[in-house]
Amino acid sequence: MSDAPVETVLPQANIEVIRSLRHFVVENIRTARRFLKRCDRSIDIDSLTFVTLDEHTRPEDIPAMLSPMEAGESVGVISEAGCPAVADPGADLVAVAQQRGYEVIPMVGPSSIILSLMASGFNGQTFAFNGYLPHDSKARSAKLKEMERRIRAERQTQIFIETPYRNNRLIAELAAALPPAMKLCVASDITGPAQSVVTLPLSAWRQRKYDYDKIPSIFLLYS
Amino acid sequence: MSDAPVETVLPQANIEVIRSLRHFVVENIRTARRFLKRCDRSIDIDSLTFVTLDEHTRPEDIPAMLSPMEAGESVGVISEAGCPAVADPGADLVAVAQQRGYEVIPMVGPSSIILSLMASGFNGQTFAFNGYLPHDSKARSAKLKEMERRIRAERQTQIFIETPYRNNRLIAELAAALPPAMKLCVASDITGPAQSVVTLPLSAWRQRKYDYDKIPSIFLLYS
Repeated sequence: MSDAPVETVLPQANIEVIRSLRHFVVENIRTARRFLKRCDRSIDIDSLTFVTLDEHTRPEDIPAMLSPMEAGESVGVISEAGCPAVADPGADLVAVAQQRGYEVIPMVGPSSIILSLMASGFNGQTFAFNGYLPHDSKARSAKLKEMERRIRAERQTQIFIETPYRNNRLIAELAAALPPAMKLCVASDITGPAQSVVTLPLSAWRQRKYDYDKIPSIFLLYS
Repeated sequence: MSDAPVETVLPQANIEVIRSLRHFVVENIRTARRFLKRCDRSIDIDSLTFVTLDEHTRPEDIPAMLSPMEAGESVGVISEAGCPAVADPGADLVAVAQQRGYEVIPMVGPSSIILSLMASGFNGQTFAFNGYLPHDSKARSAKLKEMERRIRAERQTQIFIETPYRNNRLIAELAAALPPAMKLCVASDITGPAQSVVTLPLSAWRQRKYDYDKIPSIFLLYS
């Protein structure tokens, strides 16, 4: 799911799949219903079932979400900002589906991880997505050191995210803590109207004016 | 690019972008021309320029591929099997574009890395794509050990590929070398007519009959 116009981010075939589904597991019911309406105005939302799967869901409540499968019906999974199960809820549900031997069909859609990597100019032969950096300052600086090591020793591009209101602080921190020649790519508002992907050495970020606060951004490091 | 019908893997907006481009850097000119025709039958292929960028391209030949940008024209990048610059050619060209401060716009399309991860049921909060495993047997078993360590210590899903005619051998090797309770997901023919994504413990792969040889597949490990 994404706020961008559906035809800019999803293949037409996804809409056909959506039309064929009656049961949805979603991160947020209100926005999922709105998204489905945007996919197909004629969709009869009230004939569909919705169950919430988010970070507050108890693991023991997940298996029952697949009960339509027992009756031979499919279940669609929709998450808020990216691809379900990739830095977004869904993986636990898919794990249960795999354990039961159900067919799992991933749908093509925008992943800010892959889109930012494509546009960064960094190594795409090996890369790691690290999620959020640790908050604790000791663990955080150990993580930065380890990412620096993997960039050098393995040529592995390192990708991570930050709570959006801390984006500017993170860039300043990276510029202070890591070698000036190391490159940082900041990819912000991916698939949104203000999309930008900028790769520069940390020495240049140190001098540059920027304001990414509150804009969903993803960060990539490479030498 | 993909052999699948365009409307199943690409947003409609990509076709509009393709129609607006006159210059393409492609992994294979013949298949890229065929792909563009599939996107839009009315496209005037002979009015377009094509330059090859593949694993044989010399680095010093890459900057000139962006010369249309100097005249204010855009350049499209098309790779064969996946997303340009992600386990496919393109990153070196994008790096030059970033150095020159050109706007780089990634297009949504199928990535077998993300699609397989979505369907695996494995941790999508942190994951690494490792490309091909080393061929040398000592380096290869060290790599397996290190992936096992990162799964345990960092809960990081490990993703990799193999030359397709060796897929069966690789599965047998993983089943023999790694703990039986570790889970292997084999995602094969992603976006193709025989797509399948199967997650099982290695102990079950040991006993299972399978034949993935010559089918493009991607492998994921997690505990």
